[in-house]
Amino acid sequence: MKPFMDQNFLLNTPTARELFFNIAAELPICDFHCHIPPQQIAQNKPFRSITEAWLGGDHYKWRMMRIAGVPERRITGDASDIEKFEAYASALSRAIGNPLYHWTHLELQRYFGVEEPLTGANAASIFARCNAALEDGMRPQELIARSNVRLVCTTDDPADDLRWHEELAVRNESGARVLPAFRPDKALNLAAAGFAGYVGELGKAAGVDIDSYETLKLAIAKRVDFFHEHGCRLSDHALDVVPCAVCDGATIEKVFGDAMAGKALTFEAQSQYRTDLMAFLAGLYQSRGWTMQLHIGAIRNVNADMFARLGPDIGCDAMNDLPIATPLAGLLSVIASRGPMPRIILFSLHDKDNYALSVIAGALQADGICAHVSQGPAWWYHDQRDGMVKHLRNLANVSPLSEFIGMTTDSRSLLSYTRHEYFRRILCSVIGDWVENGEFPNDADALESIVRKVCFENAMRLFE
Amino acid sequence: MKPFMDQNFLLNTPTARELFFNIAAELPICDFHCHIPPQQIAQNKPFRSITEAWLGGDHYKWRMMRIAGVPERRITGDASDIEKFEAYASALSRAIGNPLYHWTHLELQRYFGVEEPLTGANAASIFARCNAALEDGMRPQELIARSNVRLVCTTDDPADDLRWHEELAVRNESGARVLPAFRPDKALNLAAAGFAGYVGELGKAAGVDIDSYETLKLAIAKRVDFFHEHGCRLSDHALDVVPCAVCDGATIEKVFGDAMAGKALTFEAQSQYRTDLMAFLAGLYQSRGWTMQLHIGAIRNVNADMFARLGPDIGCDAMNDLPIATPLAGLLSVIASRGPMPRIILFSLHDKDNYALSVIAGALQADGICAHVSQGPAWWYHDQRDGMVKHLRNLANVSPLSEFIGMTTDSRSLLSYTRHEYFRRILCSVIGDWVENGEFPNDADALESIVRKVCFENAMRLFE
Amino acid sequence: MKPFMDQNFLLNTPTARELFFNIAAELPICDFHCHIPPQQIAQNKPFRSITEAWLGGDHYKWRMMRIAGVPERRITGDASDIEKFEAYASALSRAIGNPLYHWTHLELQRYFGVEEPLTGANAASIFARCNAALEDGMRPQELIARSNVRLVCTTDDPADDLRWHEELAVRNESGARVLPAFRPDKALNLAAAGFAGYVGELGKAAGVDIDSYETLKLAIAKRVDFFHEHGCRLSDHALDVVPCAVCDGATIEKVFGDAMAGKALTFEAQSQYRTDLMAFLAGLYQSRGWTMQLHIGAIRNVNADMFARLGPDIGCDAMNDLPIATPLAGLLSVIASRGPMPRIILFSLHDKDNYALSVIAGALQADGICAHVSQGPAWWYHDQRDGMVKHLRNLANVSPLSEFIGMTTDSRSLLSYTRHEYFRRILCSVIGDWVENGEFPNDADALESIVRKVCFENAMRLFE
Repeated sequence: MKPFMDQNFLLNTPTARELFFNIAAELPICDFHCHIPPQQIAQNKPFRSITEAWLGGDHYKWRMMRIAGVPERRITGDASDIEKFEAYASALSRAIGNPLYHWTHLELQRYFGVEEPLTGANAASIFARCNAALEDGMRPQELIARSNVRLVCTTDDPADDLRWHEELAVRNESGARVLPAFRPDKALNLAAAGFAGYVGELGKAAGVDIDSYETLKLAIAKRVDFFHEHGCRLSDHALDVVPCAVCDGATIEKVFGDAMAGKALTFEAQSQYRTDLMAFLAGLYQSRGWTMQLHIGAIRNVNADMFARLGPDIGCDAMNDLPIATPLAGLLSVIASRGPMPRIILFSLHDKDNYALSVIAGALQADGICAHVSQGPAWWYHDQRDGMVKHLRNLANVSPLSEFIGMTTDSRSLLSYTRHEYFRRILCSVIGDWVENGEFPNDADALESIVRKVCFENAMRLFE
Repeated sequence: MKPFMDQNFLLNTPTARELFFNIAAELPICDFHCHIPPQQIAQNKPFRSITEAWLGGDHYKWRMMRIAGVPERRITGDASDIEKFEAYASALSRAIGNPLYHWTHLELQRYFGVEEPLTGANAASIFARCNAALEDGMRPQELIARSNVRLVCTTDDPADDLRWHEELAVRNESGARVLPAFRPDKALNLAAAGFAGYVGELGKAAGVDIDSYETLKLAIAKRVDFFHEHGCRLSDHALDVVPCAVCDGATIEKVFGDAMAGKALTFEAQSQYRTDLMAFLAGLYQSRGWTMQLHIGAIRNVNADMFARLGPDIGCDAMNDLPIATPLAGLLSVIASRGPMPRIILFSLHDKDNYALSVIAGALQADGICAHVSQGPAWWYHDQRDGMVKHLRNLANVSPLSEFIGMTTDSRSLLSYTRHEYFRRILCSVIGDWVENGEFPNDADALESIVRKVCFENAMRLFE
Repeated sequence: MKPFMDQNFLLNTPTARELFFNIAAELPICDFHCHIPPQQIAQNKPFRSITEAWLGGDHYKWRMMRIAGVPERRITGDASDIEKFEAYASALSRAIGNPLYHWTHLELQRYFGVEEPLTGANAASIFARCNAALEDGMRPQELIARSNVRLVCTTDDPADDLRWHEELAVRNESGARVLPAFRPDKALNLAAAGFAGYVGELGKAAGVDIDSYETLKLAIAKRVDFFHEHGCRLSDHALDVVPCAVCDGATIEKVFGDAMAGKALTFEAQSQYRTDLMAFLAGLYQSRGWTMQLHIGAIRNVNADMFARLGPDIGCDAMNDLPIATPLAGLLSVIASRGPMPRIILFSLHDKDNYALSVIAGALQADGICAHVSQGPAWWYHDQRDGMVKHLRNLANVSPLSEFIGMTTDSRSLLSYTRHEYFRRILCSVIGDWVENGEFPNDADALESIVRKVCFENAMRLFE
């Protein structure tokens, strides 16, 4: 029996250990997609407690606690920090095989020096030790610095003034560049209740009086420029349903007008607008050297009662399973028909789509460019050990694995950088298995190159 | 090489063996979903032969024999018992890696003391030994008793008079409580040929003159009460397609009227009726503390010729692959909008849905209750070793595995209780791998609690 | 660490090695589905270079090179053979875990005596060695002969005059029967631009003046007879979408007339025509003892720009993910309603369908015939190690694995016969794991029979 989560955690072969300790472990982190508020990094306030750091916004943990029967009061409610921490510890001790179990203990080990397994019994003592450590030099920028992070992208609305990024450009002791990423979902969700109001905000931010689809595009282009000046090189789109419908300009103007007037819109009309705006955006991104991320297939807020009480992003999202191949191929085809495609990274939340995404990406390459369209890392519910192993093997089966963009945390927590370590251990383990089993030569240079590229270099290329 | 199916079958690590032999092996069985006729248990007649016990109603075996080229005469036809048994033995000896291979030999070992592999060559001799054992104290109740079964749920129509359950309440030497489960599929399948006739039967059973949707609901509520008095605590629904369509009461009355008159019904009209009736039923279940099982995604009787000759449930069903996320989220949302949801257990027959079901279940918890909505065990074509391993790892990845409801046989055969042993060996093996690989602490109490809950205690909670 | 791809490559247990070396390795090959041009075999011209042999038509390699950033000029363009070979070698050395890595090295070892891993550094030297070997007795028929091939099916259009097959019937030193297979896709794709022209060709080939759907069927029947006389025993259909729609004869005549006139056709009209023609063809096949292959779920030419430049089959195809269960069950039901079904082999390009295909196949057996409807080997993007392991285990879980039709290359390259070796190693490894782990008896006769049938005998039965 191997010891519990010791230094060789998940590294089951000599090759895996060599690759991890000699190469992967020391590489910096490029976290190209996360949900940490830039304000939190810029303000750099100390954490109130480990409960704030861990349970303040982590819907993975909330969800697991709910299934374990923890009352909502001790999850997102008004219970005290120690009550919530103990509730989490007790629930976690039943979550065998769950990524939270590993993430939690990697964080305890790396940031807090806690080596023993967290249980309900020792929760109070570990709570105190973590809090003491947080007080003693673990503010956000220090956390980033000790995590060896080179670059972080946050997720930002086009109407955002990026003031916290501006502040970070001046004062930032994290050692990492903190850049915005452009997420114009609100401009695409024309059927949402607050659409007209949002367009107003966007116009104000852009200094454009938006009274038509044409002026909307003008405003968006100005915001893309503004973001570009602030170092932004990635966009991100939540395509809960993949739109694909082509129409003429007059039709889109009409749809936009109806949306602004709050009229009901057919699914077809929404798709026409979204398809055209996505293609327009893709052109903007391409001309500026940006990368376009497509996050496909979430079905959000399926629990109406919880949504009414707590809002979105609280652990009540699921996987949609609509067919995506035809609309995605169609949407990308519309984009390609308008001019060169930007670099695109595809994600899907449904496991049925994962291999298919790797395959369609391979069909959409640009001449002489590595992985111009590619699949991103295992996303959300797939961002766990089994999911990552399957993902790596899928990618390897239909592409040169060396070109994989690699890991990103997609997290709302500053303590999540250990997920890169988790990923790297798994990557080295998968590669180690191939080599030890005689399926790939034990060629040190080739292996080092693959590990370096996947762990760090490929992601950094997005910012060149 | 490990010996063939010895005591350590599937138990590849010391931890797996400890967990199995010290904890799992001795736990009683709570078989909360099966298709054994209550009459068979109540009448407690001796089996004519092992052929009757094994091949009398087991469509898994029939199907495998057909693919192996066995003529139908020796499967479900008029061949003699020994002919059929020999045909099965010959076919089985080619079914390497098939769950029937393991189930068959577990049953031979545990019930008949036959340790050698069954082949065409030794079939006659094993046939004789099994028959002798069956004659010597292996009637249905004895089989249940020696299987250490604490509780069995059969599957019963709302119009059923439960006379065999009443008889079992009086005379039952199996040591197990035998309870009905409520399966109102016929009341929901309003487009089926015999719908009006069935409604008549239901009304008669309930003592209600059903002349409207309202009186139908009244009759159903009375049958729920009747089943409740007979110990029923579970319902079961076959949702070959998941309905989700909302309308007003007048519309449903009209749809019901049309159905009773044998008129053609649109898919939309059927969905409206089904959605409403499902929500009504959910309310009945919730108020009585019942659990609602949803079995999604079968496509039945795809072989018209065989259906004409042999009817349903004879091995000619397949997996449907329609998208289910949106309608299922919608249906559950309708249910939730009417009042608190009952405990719900989700199953899907298509592997594409399995992980998604775990995920959506996690979004639909009730405050302070463990696993209020959850995914059931790997169903039907997934109820095999690879399917169960994947299922356990999926569940572990998105929930505390400790809350998993665990195994049920879903079988038509009284010899299937060894499938619980099969499941328990696999569960202990999966857990053992995690512990031996340093991925979870070797915490005896925590492991014992997980094993006990998953193997027995969680299922028994359905009856508290 | 095992040596890189030595004689025990992928054979991790003694049982696997015994089964492979004692049984599988020496069996001949029956390659029942490939895309090698019969002209290439008949003309038997020497290869210009290893680049022609490897990169002349292999879209797997092209695709991988594109993702690796190789300029199209060095893939399908006007670069020299050595430039292209070096580009491939460099890209390949990053493709850890990719089937191309294994296929390439198996081919280098078996055909060219090259044992070292191919890299950018040694590419020039290996290029020269391979070319020398090709010059020295490696023409197409010699390649087939040294691959121990007993039978090859090419893929041929019904209008083809089969002149190369006729030539091969007279002069063929490969030791293999080279038979045509009947692929009437163009007759089914009534909405394609060249449909009317194609029908003209078909009529000419058949000596029938096709002026109606009835005469089309007559012409097709004549071509089936013509192919039958040339030894054809298999057909093949690309069902990118599975049609299922029934109508009367007058409607189909009208649809056919509209198609011939180049009128726009609804999806429904196309489905009606295709469904009926498929059912008609199935009847022809059945009466002649042919096998019908259905290749479901490709979405082709998703890169419009590449299609414009290079045409079809150049590495820009993806997986479609439409639901197939209902239409496939429906189509097969229409076929069955017209008379006995032919032997059918099902393939799907989307992994979500693979297990479902095994299951539906099992529901459609013919009395007393082994695997009358069955699933073919892991197709295209699934024809890799992980895909094959999963496929074998899936098949084993729902059918007697002994009846599996086994491997076919589906390749455009004469050097691909080593894929049968690859498959056999994987098969023996999977079986070996079951036996070594005590999950199946170490019964030498039973194991030998399974291996022989799956590797060779089942496929040869298609030609009896």
